[in-house]
Amino acid sequence: MKTGITRQFIADLRTVIDEKNDARAKQIICDLHPADIAEIYDELNIDEASYLFLLLDPEMGADVVSELEEDDRERFLKALPGDVIAKQFIESMDSDDAADAIADLTDEKRAEVLQNLTDVEQAGDIVDLLHYDEDTAGGLMAKELVSVRSQWNVETCIREMRKQAEGVGEVYYVYVVDDDEVLQGTLSLKRLLLSNDDVLVATIMNSDIITVPTTMESEEVAMVMEKYNLVALPVVDSIHRLVGRITIDDVVDVIREEAEKDYQMASGISEDVEASDSVYLLTRARLPWLLIGLLGGILGALVISNYEHDLSVIPAMAFFIPLIAAMGGNVGVQSSAIVVQGLAAKTLYIESTGKKILKELSVAFLNGAVCSIIIFAYNFFVSDSFELTLTVSTALFIVILIASVFGTFVPLALNRFKIDPALATGPFITTVNDILGLFIYLSIGRFMFDAI
Amino acid sequence: MKTGITRQFIADLRTVIDEKNDARAKQIICDLHPADIAEIYDELNIDEASYLFLLLDPEMGADVVSELEEDDRERFLKALPGDVIAKQFIESMDSDDAADAIADLTDEKRAEVLQNLTDVEQAGDIVDLLHYDEDTAGGLMAKELVSVRSQWNVETCIREMRKQAEGVGEVYYVYVVDDDEVLQGTLSLKRLLLSNDDVLVATIMNSDIITVPTTMESEEVAMVMEKYNLVALPVVDSIHRLVGRITIDDVVDVIREEAEKDYQMASGISEDVEASDSVYLLTRARLPWLLIGLLGGILGALVISNYEHDLSVIPAMAFFIPLIAAMGGNVGVQSSAIVVQGLAAKTLYIESTGKKILKELSVAFLNGAVCSIIIFAYNFFVSDSFELTLTVSTALFIVILIASVFGTFVPLALNRFKIDPALATGPFITTVNDILGLFIYLSIGRFMFDAI
Repeated sequence: MKTGITRQFIADLRTVIDEKNDARAKQIICDLHPADIAEIYDELNIDEASYLFLLLDPEMGADVVSELEEDDRERFLKALPGDVIAKQFIESMDSDDAADAIADLTDEKRAEVLQNLTDVEQAGDIVDLLHYDEDTAGGLMAKELVSVRSQWNVETCIREMRKQAEGVGEVYYVYVVDDDEVLQGTLSLKRLLLSNDDVLVATIMNSDIITVPTTMESEEVAMVMEKYNLVALPVVDSIHRLVGRITIDDVVDVIREEAEKDYQMASGISEDVEASDSVYLLTRARLPWLLIGLLGGILGALVISNYEHDLSVIPAMAFFIPLIAAMGGNVGVQSSAIVVQGLAAKTLYIESTGKKILKELSVAFLNGAVCSIIIFAYNFFVSDSFELTLTVSTALFIVILIASVFGTFVPLALNRFKIDPALATGPFITTVNDILGLFIYLSIGRFMFDAI
Repeated sequence: MKTGITRQFIADLRTVIDEKNDARAKQIICDLHPADIAEIYDELNIDEASYLFLLLDPEMGADVVSELEEDDRERFLKALPGDVIAKQFIESMDSDDAADAIADLTDEKRAEVLQNLTDVEQAGDIVDLLHYDEDTAGGLMAKELVSVRSQWNVETCIREMRKQAEGVGEVYYVYVVDDDEVLQGTLSLKRLLLSNDDVLVATIMNSDIITVPTTMESEEVAMVMEKYNLVALPVVDSIHRLVGRITIDDVVDVIREEAEKDYQMASGISEDVEASDSVYLLTRARLPWLLIGLLGGILGALVISNYEHDLSVIPAMAFFIPLIAAMGGNVGVQSSAIVVQGLAAKTLYIESTGKKILKELSVAFLNGAVCSIIIFAYNFFVSDSFELTLTVSTALFIVILIASVFGTFVPLALNRFKIDPALATGPFITTVNDILGLFIYLSIGRFMFDAI
């Protein structure tokens, strides 16, 4: 296995590119895996990348372009004329990668690419795939697959495979369909290899198969493939005709992206960005949540300003403002994260909402009790105001309880209204709980100091 | 596809189990996929689950137990005698699942299970696998695979496969080894199927193969399979002998768990828990971070107490304490999340640390400027103290800059010391930035009110 793209390697490569030394450049990259070549893209400017990628033979070029990050690919292809895109890259791609690659081009450019494809069937497949929403099974599937008939025997089946399999990258199963293309079953290559030539497909196929409709959402497709340990999954239309197949490598990307999205949301990043993105993109992805935080801070200031008099009398009340705010935020994020994860893994569907909140309350009760006792003990020895000691620990306990309930309830509610529950984690729940916490703390403080 | 385990279904099933109606119970679950039966486990108590799972034929039982969550499986198997575990479940499992299943049993019980296996070769494979750390390639791999010799022709190859493939669940590739078991190449079943009987394996095998050593960490294995779109990956020892293979379904679990772990850390949850876990487990997973937050809050209180006099003179300074603390925390979490993700995806290795921090500073400068201007404008119109207005916006700007640098630097430093950088996200960075922010804000405030 060759990896190890070092700074030195990149520097050497750029020199060769600058010199337009075709032979040497080819030699340098020909040993690399397409996925490694795709990684070089980030280190080159677009002219250097075009020069390099156009040196590749189309088969390799297609693989490299398929491996590029979506926005990199978009930028790269936008810089090339349609006929070059078609001949150098798209013609050697599987239909799903081809459709993904040209989906973001302008209408004219896309038409130009499609017209320049020599294989009309391929062009037709791509056009078909472009109709599906990219976040559905239809958008994930490829049209390339091997289909056979149940009344054939193994020998006919293998003969037919020879014809069909040329254009199909990896074959794990052949699909058995009837004359109307309705899916009847699947046959693993292992089974096919180990069966005698004269055995009928119908007798060895697996007819208890898992399929998904074209309209199923990507995340759900990922869940099906993950749960049932599938490497390939047939996609059917509404009358169960076989229209494509999804392979596990595409679904692994979905799983990774989904997980990254949740993580980014929890961290207050609103777009899918990477460290290598531009300063502008990174700023744009981060500013929205900061503005929400800022708004929260202003609301917090308004809440506190209502207690200005109390604070001027007992300035020590201010000492614990960050503690109360932070703890409310922390507990809220924990609670919502557990719900978000449960919803994503669909492990939450049987318990009722009431039961979930009750359980969450029990956890909060324990955590709240421990934290309250600790802060009570601390203040008992450190603070000279017993009122303050009592206020901080009571408020902390109540804030932890309320933040838990709130953190559990909000993502469940968002989910019910078909809004991504991950929105609830991160700055949103932190901010709301900050404000709630302040209000509770200062109200209790006023009550305590008045009462005692 | 049959899914839809409803509350009604569970209720019916429990009735049948209570009645010990074997025939009816079998009938209810025989149509389900093992992965679906495994999901029922959560809804049953251990006696009910044992009754149900022991009704299954061993092949199905093995699949169901393999599909159980790790801690569920551990609890389930602990309740059964060793010989039952061996005959009912382990004998029909692949070696990797079998090793995982018995890894957490006591030494005596594990020995009892192994002694009760009729297939000595299987027992040997399991013992071999138990030697590897579970978070490495060796821990992920299965011993079951089909290996052939390069000097064979296709016909011999297929004949040999018939012998070997029985015990192997899914076959995607056959592995070509020499007489010393050193890996020479791979051969896809597609290629095998489409080649003539008399062709030599050496001429059709792919010898440019990607392998991993037994010692490679699971996360890295996942990255390799993901990057190169592999469904199966051969594992070799230090002298390149083939010792096992890893299939994509096991790696999908690694990817999912890794992503969940980062997400949980960012959300302040320190153990791998689910909503369905016990109140005790959930509390234990959440308390550590809350205690860190509590400690941070106490330190924050100490910082503020140093400024008690200032606050009693200008109580309005207290209004913006939560805003400054929250913004420092938010920015820090954003920064560290981007670094953590970059480290996980290995996309960060080429830029130098200095360059990363410089870029982060640019982003922080923009975000800081926008937020500062907004809060300046707000206070300019709302607050009657220009000193306060100036203090809040200056402090906010500086806090955003410092929190960014800090949030970028800490995970990079942790990573250098081989500590999981995800530890830096979530409550830790929030807490440190809270305190830093308070200190900066109050110091600037004292300076402003003294100076102006």
